[in-house]
Amino acid sequence: MNADLLQFGRRILAEQPFSILLGTELTAFEPGRAELTLAVRREHQQQHGFVHGGVVSYLADNALTYAGGSALPQQGVVTSEYKINYLRPAIGQTLVARASVQYAGRTQAVCRCDVFAVNQGEEKLCATAQGTIVPLGAAPE
Amino acid sequence: MNADLLQFGRRILAEQPFSILLGTELTAFEPGRAELTLAVRREHQQQHGFVHGGVVSYLADNALTYAGGSALPQQGVVTSEYKINYLRPAIGQTLVARASVQYAGRTQAVCRCDVFAVNQGEEKLCATAQGTIVPLGAAPE
Amino acid sequence: MNADLLQFGRRILAEQPFSILLGTELTAFEPGRAELTLAVRREHQQQHGFVHGGVVSYLADNALTYAGGSALPQQGVVTSEYKINYLRPAIGQTLVARASVQYAGRTQAVCRCDVFAVNQGEEKLCATAQGTIVPLGAAPE
Amino acid sequence: MNADLLQFGRRILAEQPFSILLGTELTAFEPGRAELTLAVRREHQQQHGFVHGGVVSYLADNALTYAGGSALPQQGVVTSEYKINYLRPAIGQTLVARASVQYAGRTQAVCRCDVFAVNQGEEKLCATAQGTIVPLGAAPE
Repeated sequence: MNADLLQFGRRILAEQPFSILLGTELTAFEPGRAELTLAVRREHQQQHGFVHGGVVSYLADNALTYAGGSALPQQGVVTSEYKINYLRPAIGQTLVARASVQYAGRTQAVCRCDVFAVNQGEEKLCATAQGTIVPLGAAPE
Repeated sequence: MNADLLQFGRRILAEQPFSILLGTELTAFEPGRAELTLAVRREHQQQHGFVHGGVVSYLADNALTYAGGSALPQQGVVTSEYKINYLRPAIGQTLVARASVQYAGRTQAVCRCDVFAVNQGEEKLCATAQGTIVPLGAAPE
Repeated sequence: MNADLLQFGRRILAEQPFSILLGTELTAFEPGRAELTLAVRREHQQQHGFVHGGVVSYLADNALTYAGGSALPQQGVVTSEYKINYLRPAIGQTLVARASVQYAGRTQAVCRCDVFAVNQGEEKLCATAQGTIVPLGAAPE
Repeated sequence: MNADLLQFGRRILAEQPFSILLGTELTAFEPGRAELTLAVRREHQQQHGFVHGGVVSYLADNALTYAGGSALPQQGVVTSEYKINYLRPAIGQTLVARASVQYAGRTQAVCRCDVFAVNQGEEKLCATAQGTIVPLGAAPE
């Protein structure tokens, strides 16, 4: 069943042109939990050679949506809002975003996400986020 | 002098591979204020045909950094943290992010940013953000 | 009509034991905008003699709820989430929180609030917040 | 040594007139972790009979500051910013806020806090927060 969920999640990711552009992969997806992985390329960087904050944010936001979506009964969900703290420069060959559900009700799921940069095999926490996922059509009008 | 600032800001943007990948332009930059503009392409979208939240976040984050940077004495700055509320699906041909400084001290600037989607010439607010900009080396270690 | 709204808002405030304990007053309330004022007492302070952050947050949160509530069709509303940046120590005889609606839809209002400390007649911005107001029963379950 | 830390933390709390007014107790304090407990009184409530969001926020904010302070080398610290999601109405006889350090550097600690309402012995998560703690004098000027 979780294999089905993972397959379903990957199909959605494959329908996001922006995620294809960046090269994001859904590496884990089960009820209440999601993991996105990104192989870092030169084009993901900013002027200091670190991964651009916008890439880190995108990954956190997307992982939050997946985690929240797995905990809500509705089919389509979106991130309504989130907050992110950047902790360290994102330096490495891979970024991994791990999100989990903190609370899920009928109309919202509140989730957390940690983003790690993997450099030469060593994982370092580089950002942490908290956000609200809602059914599609609930928040934006 | 503001022409110098705009030129300086555009040079930095031209050094960000991720901003080049997306096609971002710095369309206004003066002390306390910055505007980024993005011509929307198919590859910026998610599965519903709207601009991906990650693109909206990236634009807000980057505009916040520019606005904050213009108000801090230090040369290099980064976004330490921010929060964003998505308000409407980002539908249109152009995205415009307008950020301004709410407070600037010696060691941080707190800024706000509104992101508008321009559809057939009509601007609609699609996200609003608030964040903290700090000198490079201050927050991330 | 706005006089009615102000009166209505004051009646609600008078039903909040915590607001009575603190001595909060609703000094302005109209569609899309609310102002709360607090005469600072010794018991509002923390160990450095400033107004406690918790008092500043409470005031911002409550002003956000009023502003959002004035823009939503539903009768009862609550703050679903908010974010606050403390900017300066809150020093003075009075705190004033001014909130306004940034966006209002059917199911949520996103609002901003600035909190000022008034010291010897001079107003200084000491905190700024952004949050989401929802109909009662929508968010918390 | 942790007994010393707890004693030190309690002495600071006893110097906060606002915490005395509310009746807050520091029930755990060790490097990287803090717990505040509040016996709920009528005067902590809002108009629906729940604990006022301002009280929940105050407790989260204060617990974040304790946790962050235990992980920073500087003596005095303050909350620079935080974000809170209210999840359920805070109904019960006691509130417990548990905060922990997610990341600590030289100049900031990023912490999380869960606030639980204890009703007839049953704990329910009613809010979750994330925030930045900085040395006194760093953020506010």
